[in-house]
Amino acid sequence: MNYLESLRNRYSVKKFDKDKTVSSDLIANILEAAKLSASSLGLQPYEIIIVQSAEMKEKLVPAFYNPSQISTCSHLIVLVSKNTIGEEYIGKYFSHISQTREIPLESLNPFKQSISSHIEKLSPEEVMAWADKQCYIVLGNLMFAAALENVDTCPMEGFSPEKISQVLEIDASTEKVAVTLALGYRSEEDQFQKLKKVRKPNDKLFKFI
Amino acid sequence: MNYLESLRNRYSVKKFDKDKTVSSDLIANILEAAKLSASSLGLQPYEIIIVQSAEMKEKLVPAFYNPSQISTCSHLIVLVSKNTIGEEYIGKYFSHISQTREIPLESLNPFKQSISSHIEKLSPEEVMAWADKQCYIVLGNLMFAAALENVDTCPMEGFSPEKISQVLEIDASTEKVAVTLALGYRSEEDQFQKLKKVRKPNDKLFKFI
Repeated sequence: MNYLESLRNRYSVKKFDKDKTVSSDLIANILEAAKLSASSLGLQPYEIIIVQSAEMKEKLVPAFYNPSQISTCSHLIVLVSKNTIGEEYIGKYFSHISQTREIPLESLNPFKQSISSHIEKLSPEEVMAWADKQCYIVLGNLMFAAALENVDTCPMEGFSPEKISQVLEIDASTEKVAVTLALGYRSEEDQFQKLKKVRKPNDKLFKFI
Repeated sequence: MNYLESLRNRYSVKKFDKDKTVSSDLIANILEAAKLSASSLGLQPYEIIIVQSAEMKEKLVPAFYNPSQISTCSHLIVLVSKNTIGEEYIGKYFSHISQTREIPLESLNPFKQSISSHIEKLSPEEVMAWADKQCYIVLGNLMFAAALENVDTCPMEGFSPEKISQVLEIDASTEKVAVTLALGYRSEEDQFQKLKKVRKPNDKLFKFI
């Protein structure tokens, strides 16, 4: 099956098969795709929480407006964006570049300064919006990789960030729940899999110039 | 090459080979992946502009802080998000669902009402932030599909939305440039392709619960 077939086969699952678990090998591949996501300036302003414990998933059900996916999924991925990007975070990033690429930290100073001055110019709200958007690239990669692995997903924005933060002990002063993705295998009972995919026709979606 | 190898091979190209054009077949496949992107409530609150004209690309160069990619890429994709989602837009969406799935429009009323009341509750700023984020899922799919097709890319946020809007005649009262992606083939002269990819180590990026 080629990748477009995999994407055509993907839909936002409403009910997963509770008895099927995604293997740790497939989860590792899908997370590797998340890790390889592009991010603005390479800063990866996020953390990726993978909830696999049945007990924790149960605790998270009330945080979602549609509980069906959470109560039936194999894994729930919570993408958590950074609220702030400070000098310390940028400093660690550049130490890491220096180590990985085996180049002196000093040689990176011009790039570091341009990033710092760019980030400093942003308001706290702009930093949060920017970090959130980077999470959505990760979300895209997760769904795409899962589709290639024949793993079903449902992206979910309908939740109480406060409730998720409380259950997962996310420090709201530094991090924020950006978006979530349930993974598993579609239930045969989920009627939505039989519906035709609805997309804007090409002439409404694309404009060639 | 498996998909993780393709993603490892992807990097944000700084300079493309000016003499190489991405074939229209590959562009069509990559755009199909964009079209198949998930979007919140299925609303696809965006338009996708594909700039292939050399003259138009040239006109867009001054709109970008890093001109190198624009002046050397084969195609430039501009993701344009909707500023507002009104009753008319939602109405058209539901007519389209009704036609595609061959079901009476009336049967969709409960879903339609829930979407309308959800969107109505959002402030104009929230609608814009929400629409922008949906564009980033498309961005993720575009980069992923391009990587699978051995087409190189560079996502770019560093631009003047006003200048792009002016050149591409985007009506700023209804639409906004969210993010852009240059496509082409990496130039042999681009030294960045030789650098090791820098990603947070797994224990800093992932948390298993």
